[in-house]
Amino acid sequence: MSEKHDAVDLSHHISDFAKTLDSRLAFGKPGPPGTISLDGGVPDTEYFPIESITVEYLKPDSFPLKPTDALPHGPGVLGWIANVLTGKSNKTTDSYTISRRLGPDDQSKFELKTALTYSPITGLPALETIVADWVKRVHQPAYSNYATLVDVGASCAWSSCLSILLNPGDSFITDRYAYNAALYQARARDVHPVAVATDLDGLSAVDLEHVLANWDEKARGLRRPRVIYTQGGIQNPTGLMISTQRKKDIYDIVVRYDLIIVEDDPYYFQQASHPYQHNNTVPQPQKQSDEEWIDSLVPSFLRFDYEGRVIRLDTFSKTIGPGGRLGYYTGSPQLLEKLQALHQSYITFPSGVAQAVFGELLHRYQSEGFARWLRGLTSQYELRRNWAIDALYDALDLHAKSQTRALVAYAPSDGQISEKSKPKTSLMSFVPPDGGMFMWFNIHLHNHPRYHALARQTSPAAAKNALATELWTAIADAGVILRRGELFASEDDEERVRLGEEDIFLRASFSYGPREDLEKAFKIFASVLVKFFE
Amino acid sequence: MSEKHDAVDLSHHISDFAKTLDSRLAFGKPGPPGTISLDGGVPDTEYFPIESITVEYLKPDSFPLKPTDALPHGPGVLGWIANVLTGKSNKTTDSYTISRRLGPDDQSKFELKTALTYSPITGLPALETIVADWVKRVHQPAYSNYATLVDVGASCAWSSCLSILLNPGDSFITDRYAYNAALYQARARDVHPVAVATDLDGLSAVDLEHVLANWDEKARGLRRPRVIYTQGGIQNPTGLMISTQRKKDIYDIVVRYDLIIVEDDPYYFQQASHPYQHNNTVPQPQKQSDEEWIDSLVPSFLRFDYEGRVIRLDTFSKTIGPGGRLGYYTGSPQLLEKLQALHQSYITFPSGVAQAVFGELLHRYQSEGFARWLRGLTSQYELRRNWAIDALYDALDLHAKSQTRALVAYAPSDGQISEKSKPKTSLMSFVPPDGGMFMWFNIHLHNHPRYHALARQTSPAAAKNALATELWTAIADAGVILRRGELFASEDDEERVRLGEEDIFLRASFSYGPREDLEKAFKIFASVLVKFFE
Repeated sequence: MSEKHDAVDLSHHISDFAKTLDSRLAFGKPGPPGTISLDGGVPDTEYFPIESITVEYLKPDSFPLKPTDALPHGPGVLGWIANVLTGKSNKTTDSYTISRRLGPDDQSKFELKTALTYSPITGLPALETIVADWVKRVHQPAYSNYATLVDVGASCAWSSCLSILLNPGDSFITDRYAYNAALYQARARDVHPVAVATDLDGLSAVDLEHVLANWDEKARGLRRPRVIYTQGGIQNPTGLMISTQRKKDIYDIVVRYDLIIVEDDPYYFQQASHPYQHNNTVPQPQKQSDEEWIDSLVPSFLRFDYEGRVIRLDTFSKTIGPGGRLGYYTGSPQLLEKLQALHQSYITFPSGVAQAVFGELLHRYQSEGFARWLRGLTSQYELRRNWAIDALYDALDLHAKSQTRALVAYAPSDGQISEKSKPKTSLMSFVPPDGGMFMWFNIHLHNHPRYHALARQTSPAAAKNALATELWTAIADAGVILRRGELFASEDDEERVRLGEEDIFLRASFSYGPREDLEKAFKIFASVLVKFFE
Repeated sequence: MSEKHDAVDLSHHISDFAKTLDSRLAFGKPGPPGTISLDGGVPDTEYFPIESITVEYLKPDSFPLKPTDALPHGPGVLGWIANVLTGKSNKTTDSYTISRRLGPDDQSKFELKTALTYSPITGLPALETIVADWVKRVHQPAYSNYATLVDVGASCAWSSCLSILLNPGDSFITDRYAYNAALYQARARDVHPVAVATDLDGLSAVDLEHVLANWDEKARGLRRPRVIYTQGGIQNPTGLMISTQRKKDIYDIVVRYDLIIVEDDPYYFQQASHPYQHNNTVPQPQKQSDEEWIDSLVPSFLRFDYEGRVIRLDTFSKTIGPGGRLGYYTGSPQLLEKLQALHQSYITFPSGVAQAVFGELLHRYQSEGFARWLRGLTSQYELRRNWAIDALYDALDLHAKSQTRALVAYAPSDGQISEKSKPKTSLMSFVPPDGGMFMWFNIHLHNHPRYHALARQTSPAAAKNALATELWTAIADAGVILRRGELFASEDDEERVRLGEEDIFLRASFSYGPREDLEKAFKIFASVLVKFFE
């Protein structure tokens, strides 16, 4: 085993704004034990009106690893009744109480005395430990002195990374299609996304190197990007995963070109256990323990990060609940110190109520239990993905495209027409997602009967925009809301048209709602799409 | 009754950064009822591991309006036992449960289904209503279309106000001594505090007008300030209140000079019912109902704001608990819309767990109950203020300074020396606070035996700094942490020395800890101070 080293010096990556941040200036110094502090503007802990919080929680194995197709809607009341009747449910609850103060024999790690007052910027110490242990267990960073820091969720975390790394006028590299709110946040700060091509294995290492090696500051009007924003697990919006080899290739380039990766990864644990297979909605779970399951996940960029060039953003939004507003960074202490100073002067710390409620849950689960919980959830999302694609199979003619993982959709034959006379015009294609929450539909606008004429009359960009609006509106009028693909475009329309991308995209979530709604919505989308192409 | 009008147009006060913010760009549009949304990256509400949260809370009248001196430490376990034995406690608890989903007969206003998922940026609707009703009840703004918006506490709220109002290089007006973190946040954004003198009635209207009328952009190197940051209730660090008349005077100037006030007011409800009186630690409560008590509070700037020029920052940090990270703005819809857009791209929304736990508490209390709770708390802080000053009386010779509200401190006479030979050199002075959590000690450095020689050898600023460090360190070495006054200085040391302020300040909190620690700490401070002047 090679010995791990400390992170390299990355101080030249700190933004002008963040260079001036020094959290030590704003606050008083702590004293030795026994000191009486009259320093803070803090209520006495006896003055909090909340005496205790008791949480009833689902046991880690509440969701089966092989979810039944009969499950009407997760474990919900009806579902549970049905499952109890059919003997399929493990749904049981347990509870914990967070008291004003910990008693000597208390099993809990959290108390309201600390949860209801000002937390340290680094969060409640018990949560810090849980987070650090979990990162060590799951990600095993390749350098020794990495640190973790709690935050209020990945959106804010990315915004904070923008603040400490990039100056207005700077740029960063990201996927051709990237999380829309992340792009919006950057643009609001006058920080410019630069697109790199994405293929089935994720962000293209070849295109990345091409962009960096041939960067023309004058022609671009931007300094060469120093930061990559991407998603290490399941990418939003594409639902695809960056392969292990691709991560290694990208990391090599990152070191050579002195870059930083911000790895925003809310869907990391939603890696499906099986690729989608038609008519096999509920595949057998892999034969492995929950601990083995953790190790079977595609490693994050952190695993290969031997220089401390990755700031990884994790969140509990998709694993416990977005309402916690709780997540954490992992990265080099030098960069996390700047994030901490930024927090000090802005968000301060995540809600202590959420820290205690979520933290105690994690403590009760322990890492094995949390792994089991995540595995059960992931099975649910896998099932939903399969429901959604099965519904499309019902409504469209879907064909696997040779030598790719894509499915190509045609208008359904009416059964009267022979196989030979099947219309040759494809409507759209998509790659069944590797997990996560989204499907990403590539609408074949180049096959649309009105596109080319419209493009000649106006411009390709105008034609694309007009037809994208027409399609999105028709789907909405039929009662289904999808998210328009242009929102995810990291370069603007003219740029993409120049690059020969004449198609448009739509993102559809399969992560929530009753099964019948999900299937209905995907079928409505399919039927509107068929009509749109007529 | 004069009719209230809408806020005036203040769009010219929006910062360059905030002008580009448009929250509508980043997110999809909602559909009509019955629409199936596949738009969000949201877990199904059945996938949250938390089934219910039960909160045991203190009833509103848990703290007496006339707190007994015998109360050892708030209502804590020992205190309660003692009080039950002496028949003095009202401490009882009640409880509520926040379930995964509201049942038809549920008394609760909050459910985990919404609290654990993404909230609207404007917060959970039930909390929005509670906040709006409370603001209407307490502050009665003088214009009609004011709005409220939840935030994650006043520190972050001020930082957000800086973002939407001021450009780097801009300035704002504040008290000569102002909340240190607020100054730090501004300076970190290259936004410069400009000091206005403060007297016993608060920020000086005369000096404010003087500064504005005589602003010399060239000499100052700064554009004329457009924003005032101050505290409407109890000021931090001075513990003093801006009087009603002074607020009116300042507001007139604000309108004439087209300014905006950011009224940061965490201690608004901690207005003591009586001025400090020696040997009257536990005064009789005012004879009034809890509703009358609300109306008896010194009005905030909002009450006089007929043009929508005040952004008021409220927080639950001092009234429920800082760990909630929950507060709210009140202000003109035009400004709050920009804050909302900023939140959208940064903090998103306050923790839904805290929103539900705190929101349901407020719902159970109702506004009368919350008023009673606040009144009980305020009595506790008043008692603590009185303990602290009584302790100083024990350790120092304190004398009321004629025609001011200040107490001047001398080294204690040893009892052997006659009244006439009492040392004439004062050590410090302070004004017994009008409420809040702090005492603000003016250390009479001009009387220090080494100050003048040291100032001649080095410089007044260097001498001040050296002696301030010496004093603070001596107090810390004796086991008490105070906060250094320089941290609160809105203009730097050289500037203050130029202004003839040769004294230094220390802030001491009396808001927390057992009575014996509090008294001990204030006595230690006093004895170190006496020694320091020897």
